[in-house]
Amino acid sequence: MEQVAEKPKLTVSGVNRVREILDWYKGENPGVLANLARMLNHGTLASTGRMVILPVDQGFEHGPARSFAPNPPAYDPHYHFELAIEAGTNAYAAPLGFLEAGAAEFAGQVPLILKVNNSDSLSGGEPCPAVTAGVQDALRLGCSAIGFTIYPGSEELRELTLEAKSVGLAVVVWSYPRGAGVSKDGETAIDVVAYAAQIAAQLGAHVIKVKPPTEHIEQDAARKVYEKEKIPIGTLADRVRHVVQSAFNGKRIVIFSGGAAKGTEEVLEEIRAIRDGGGFGSIIGRNSFQRSRTDGVKLLRKVMDVYLGR
Amino acid sequence: MEQVAEKPKLTVSGVNRVREILDWYKGENPGVLANLARMLNHGTLASTGRMVILPVDQGFEHGPARSFAPNPPAYDPHYHFELAIEAGTNAYAAPLGFLEAGAAEFAGQVPLILKVNNSDSLSGGEPCPAVTAGVQDALRLGCSAIGFTIYPGSEELRELTLEAKSVGLAVVVWSYPRGAGVSKDGETAIDVVAYAAQIAAQLGAHVIKVKPPTEHIEQDAARKVYEKEKIPIGTLADRVRHVVQSAFNGKRIVIFSGGAAKGTEEVLEEIRAIRDGGGFGSIIGRNSFQRSRTDGVKLLRKVMDVYLGR
Amino acid sequence: MEQVAEKPKLTVSGVNRVREILDWYKGENPGVLANLARMLNHGTLASTGRMVILPVDQGFEHGPARSFAPNPPAYDPHYHFELAIEAGTNAYAAPLGFLEAGAAEFAGQVPLILKVNNSDSLSGGEPCPAVTAGVQDALRLGCSAIGFTIYPGSEELRELTLEAKSVGLAVVVWSYPRGAGVSKDGETAIDVVAYAAQIAAQLGAHVIKVKPPTEHIEQDAARKVYEKEKIPIGTLADRVRHVVQSAFNGKRIVIFSGGAAKGTEEVLEEIRAIRDGGGFGSIIGRNSFQRSRTDGVKLLRKVMDVYLGR
Amino acid sequence: MEQVAEKPKLTVSGVNRVREILDWYKGENPGVLANLARMLNHGTLASTGRMVILPVDQGFEHGPARSFAPNPPAYDPHYHFELAIEAGTNAYAAPLGFLEAGAAEFAGQVPLILKVNNSDSLSGGEPCPAVTAGVQDALRLGCSAIGFTIYPGSEELRELTLEAKSVGLAVVVWSYPRGAGVSKDGETAIDVVAYAAQIAAQLGAHVIKVKPPTEHIEQDAARKVYEKEKIPIGTLADRVRHVVQSAFNGKRIVIFSGGAAKGTEEVLEEIRAIRDGGGFGSIIGRNSFQRSRTDGVKLLRKVMDVYLGR
Amino acid sequence: MEQVAEKPKLTVSGVNRVREILDWYKGENPGVLANLARMLNHGTLASTGRMVILPVDQGFEHGPARSFAPNPPAYDPHYHFELAIEAGTNAYAAPLGFLEAGAAEFAGQVPLILKVNNSDSLSGGEPCPAVTAGVQDALRLGCSAIGFTIYPGSEELRELTLEAKSVGLAVVVWSYPRGAGVSKDGETAIDVVAYAAQIAAQLGAHVIKVKPPTEHIEQDAARKVYEKEKIPIGTLADRVRHVVQSAFNGKRIVIFSGGAAKGTEEVLEEIRAIRDGGGFGSIIGRNSFQRSRTDGVKLLRKVMDVYLGR
Repeated sequence: MEQVAEKPKLTVSGVNRVREILDWYKGENPGVLANLARMLNHGTLASTGRMVILPVDQGFEHGPARSFAPNPPAYDPHYHFELAIEAGTNAYAAPLGFLEAGAAEFAGQVPLILKVNNSDSLSGGEPCPAVTAGVQDALRLGCSAIGFTIYPGSEELRELTLEAKSVGLAVVVWSYPRGAGVSKDGETAIDVVAYAAQIAAQLGAHVIKVKPPTEHIEQDAARKVYEKEKIPIGTLADRVRHVVQSAFNGKRIVIFSGGAAKGTEEVLEEIRAIRDGGGFGSIIGRNSFQRSRTDGVKLLRKVMDVYLGR
Repeated sequence: MEQVAEKPKLTVSGVNRVREILDWYKGENPGVLANLARMLNHGTLASTGRMVILPVDQGFEHGPARSFAPNPPAYDPHYHFELAIEAGTNAYAAPLGFLEAGAAEFAGQVPLILKVNNSDSLSGGEPCPAVTAGVQDALRLGCSAIGFTIYPGSEELRELTLEAKSVGLAVVVWSYPRGAGVSKDGETAIDVVAYAAQIAAQLGAHVIKVKPPTEHIEQDAARKVYEKEKIPIGTLADRVRHVVQSAFNGKRIVIFSGGAAKGTEEVLEEIRAIRDGGGFGSIIGRNSFQRSRTDGVKLLRKVMDVYLGR
Repeated sequence: MEQVAEKPKLTVSGVNRVREILDWYKGENPGVLANLARMLNHGTLASTGRMVILPVDQGFEHGPARSFAPNPPAYDPHYHFELAIEAGTNAYAAPLGFLEAGAAEFAGQVPLILKVNNSDSLSGGEPCPAVTAGVQDALRLGCSAIGFTIYPGSEELRELTLEAKSVGLAVVVWSYPRGAGVSKDGETAIDVVAYAAQIAAQLGAHVIKVKPPTEHIEQDAARKVYEKEKIPIGTLADRVRHVVQSAFNGKRIVIFSGGAAKGTEEVLEEIRAIRDGGGFGSIIGRNSFQRSRTDGVKLLRKVMDVYLGR
Repeated sequence: MEQVAEKPKLTVSGVNRVREILDWYKGENPGVLANLARMLNHGTLASTGRMVILPVDQGFEHGPARSFAPNPPAYDPHYHFELAIEAGTNAYAAPLGFLEAGAAEFAGQVPLILKVNNSDSLSGGEPCPAVTAGVQDALRLGCSAIGFTIYPGSEELRELTLEAKSVGLAVVVWSYPRGAGVSKDGETAIDVVAYAAQIAAQLGAHVIKVKPPTEHIEQDAARKVYEKEKIPIGTLADRVRHVVQSAFNGKRIVIFSGGAAKGTEEVLEEIRAIRDGGGFGSIIGRNSFQRSRTDGVKLLRKVMDVYLGR
Repeated sequence: MEQVAEKPKLTVSGVNRVREILDWYKGENPGVLANLARMLNHGTLASTGRMVILPVDQGFEHGPARSFAPNPPAYDPHYHFELAIEAGTNAYAAPLGFLEAGAAEFAGQVPLILKVNNSDSLSGGEPCPAVTAGVQDALRLGCSAIGFTIYPGSEELRELTLEAKSVGLAVVVWSYPRGAGVSKDGETAIDVVAYAAQIAAQLGAHVIKVKPPTEHIEQDAARKVYEKEKIPIGTLADRVRHVVQSAFNGKRIVIFSGGAAKGTEEVLEEIRAIRDGGGFGSIIGRNSFQRSRTDGVKLLRKVMDVYLGR
């Protein structure tokens, strides 16, 4: 009698890891879970439980020349879709216009995250993100998630979060404390970053994006505890471990931004520390699209190799 | 110097075939295109442009014993998710309850089609499908499409179609003419099936499900044309070719139902004819889930092997 | 001193004729007027006040083989867009699916009329048109008008008419009395066709499509009047004149269908009579798309030459 | 045998250019594409891919005397319709009242853009545009697009954009950064104008209106990049090229305002630079309607001649 | 041969004037035109194209004692209906409560304008009108129009305007700039009043109510134009002429308020200037209802005599 092939590879450890992650979100509807799975199961890191996302909101946030002049093909919205697809990232995140300009052409080739608020650098003073797109846009563009930067008192985002979840979209939160109460150094202080991760998780984020934390401690009240409890923060891996713990004991997907453009080895070293500390992945914009296409793809693949343990 | 790998396999013929198919639907928004791509790029037939779907609405349509007693594990809603995943079908289609019962557990593992109308066999007389679920259900369950059976004057379905498309869901139509104007033999007559494909396409369906047509011609007015124009309908492949042509000259995805349970070879012979006639695939319910799990998976894989030209 | 060119051709008699026609509809909002103008100012007959429309709903109404087998390229939805554009018709009318399949590809190249109800020939007995599309579809597809066939008690159409007008869409009505009270010959009887034109006008139609009337008089009560008042109905031109008069004394655009496929000279003779009787134009489906493309274009151009008085 | 004329002029390069442009917007529905095509295919510049628009919102923005006293016939709303029609501009843009006052009279003679927000000069301090009309108005008036000025945090405009697109209307954005973070000179600085174009594109605009940029660089962070990357900004053509690149690498229609009234030669010199830099066209208000009608028409035609390469 | 009677008296000069006026509003639906006609054809000034309206919103705006104590019968809502009817004004305008209190009793005896926003004098600071009634109220009370005072950013009024027009109601706008950017003298400055008329017209008002302008010029930018273009503003008639011109070159009905109570001759002198400047009429509240009934009626009749050229 003929043999039925063994159960397909879908049930090997990879899928089990994704199902384990989804289990943390079991209060959400199946649509949200499916969209989280779509991102986790796509690209080079598919089914590893790790994520690398390409975000391109700098055109809006810093202006076009500062963003794209170092690598002029990046002025073209199709460029970033192609970069994400070629490098095999789990998702591509951008504001409305960039997604509208390629979502039909590249339909189904990479999960999309619609960045629904953005702040420009023209107004001066504190960044004040405006809501620039909505859940209905995310649906008509075939996105898997909406993404936004949180800032104090953002009532509207609360409603967008609720609305997104009700239609099965995942919610990705950029959590970067800023403003009067936080010093420039404090923006990447370990206590502040850990706190930022906690806040985003408490607001219902499924995926949380924070900055790699430094050893600096911003708040006196926090410092006392870090010292008393001897929380290890000596290495970046230590600090990443603490931040991940701060996001529901590791039960929320926390990824780390790459920050300003820098050398390849510098980037990779940071990635290794994030991996070693149990970080779920990275969101790498300027370090990829401000390089030439060849170099950008190469870097993203090296980053993913680190997460694959290669 | 290190070499970056060539452009990834995404640009090989498979993806090109999917993009060619998506191009027929370019009036739709990117969300619809992405969901069509999701189904076309999933499972064993991923990126071939062919589709095999597992449909399980017989519990509603024929009652549980008639549907599941031949293979009692099939009473369990999880059974069908597992069957679809294990066999690698492009999608799984079912009424609300069956999907609700497994969509969280199997989130992201197989594209789902929510069957939004169903008719039961209790009322007697003409089948009269009731709308049993909606677009909001499809979204919260993470579906890629809604599906429904058309029948005369179904105003509500027109609105569901519009609503589904506006939120980026694909629309699958079961087109099975029945009723006063159509004899029992006429339900699978070549002229009626071709007509059914045309009507579904004109109503805006993205994927159209019809029955394999017989040589019988139901309508006199049609017979004259078939004879005069010498339309070849002698073999099933001929007839499939004519039905596919009748759905916008092959520019709509037309798949064929498997019908009542029968022998494996009989099923496969039909599939070969569908493939040879240019049919896009099959939707196979009873022939898979009314066999044992091992045999059901085996059959579905053989069916897909036929479409893969193996 | 430099000379400014004279006022552009927009103010010549053509535009004046269109403005005169628009003046009959001055109760409508500017959106409706603009869409009527779009159709009147497009194609070969632009600005003459005459209209030739290509309608292709036969696939739905008669089935695909009866409609397209005589000229198989016509199975393809793009074919009809190209036919309308190449021949220079004022508009192209079709059901939802045919428009969806080409509206993006041919955007802005020919005014579109969405046929929002259709009846199929499968059900047997009286034709019972189902509403198959709506005003929101017409807007998202960029149509200039909706079109529908009227039948007794069609409440829904009343609402569609109101909704269409409120968003600036024109309303085209196919007025073909049928059913128990009308004999087969009566469907084209002069009294019935004139009556059909009146009813469509009273229902708020902007453009009215009727069949070329015969000399037959269906209703006894009508016959007495035709005889007493000596209404001339001896020639087709006479009868067309009477039908146009019956549609608000010529203040509604009345166009005539071409009917079943026939010889070129036969078609043109009918067109000359319509023109001589003051008919506004023709809507010619089967006689154009059931010929080869070359012959179809040729015929449509000859028809338009007749209206141009060439 | 009679010859059918060759394919009509619709397939010459002009239409191909328009279709190439529409291809950049393929994520939008066919209604949006049709309305973009309507504007691109209208008037003197029809099918060249260039656009000249007549905007008349100064009555609202600056008051009637400052706007119309230099050419008193311009107090009359019909004047501007006639100016746009006679000069052959691609479209005419104005607030609600001006369009309501002529949309019926001139229905179908020039594409209309309803300016849905406006700020008056009475309130003093920062201009604070109020939403003065909506999408339903645009539809009932037969407009092809809505237009609005963006300003930080304008939530309402996001919804108007989505609503407009869903009913097939194009979206034109006036992008003029102003306010606390931008100096008077900065309002036309090359970095600010390029940034303004980027923001409008990211917000989903189909057509973007910016001011002709000067060589001034407003922001220090930007200056470093312009110098490092040696972005050419020495001539207006250079700067226009950079602004167009900044709007999705030339894949969004960017047009330039004419600014305050000035001499004909001065205007034309600017237009030549815009053309040479790859700008898509101009939006010329005060320079046309504050001249006498003869001179206004003459100027607009000369501007279009520049774009036609005459 | 039988003689057809001459065309009926409907075509005498009076009606022609009303039809000429209605022609300026031809973008509106016939319901709006009919309601404008109802007001223009009612009372002493019927069919002259002139209008005198009785407005009584002072009870809400200034409190009852300040409004009605000088003539206590005016506390009674019936009083104002009777005043308007006896004097033969074209319409009577009031807030919801006053109209509800008499609309049944005096049904059909005088056209009604429902004032849908009002500001009270209790809150202190800038007047901040609240929306106090809606379109549904206007319909159930049998009104011919809604009326409201505009103020910056009044989104809600935009929707009320659209809704009113869609059900065939006319829209009357009280346009009185106030606030931070406008000095006390500036509120009646010629440039400000002309600007106010323009804004109301651009917002879609059918009838515009402004204050009689003084020779004062508020804005420097405006003064330069008035001087350069030598716009005559020396007499009230001159200024009225300029204001009327500023409202679409006289194509919108502009009426002037009577302001605070004053002597009869003073009132009439102002009316004569308004008439001589081409103003369409007056809206006279306190000067009529704060006199005794006999005197109030007498004054209103004298005002109308001025407009009748008596």
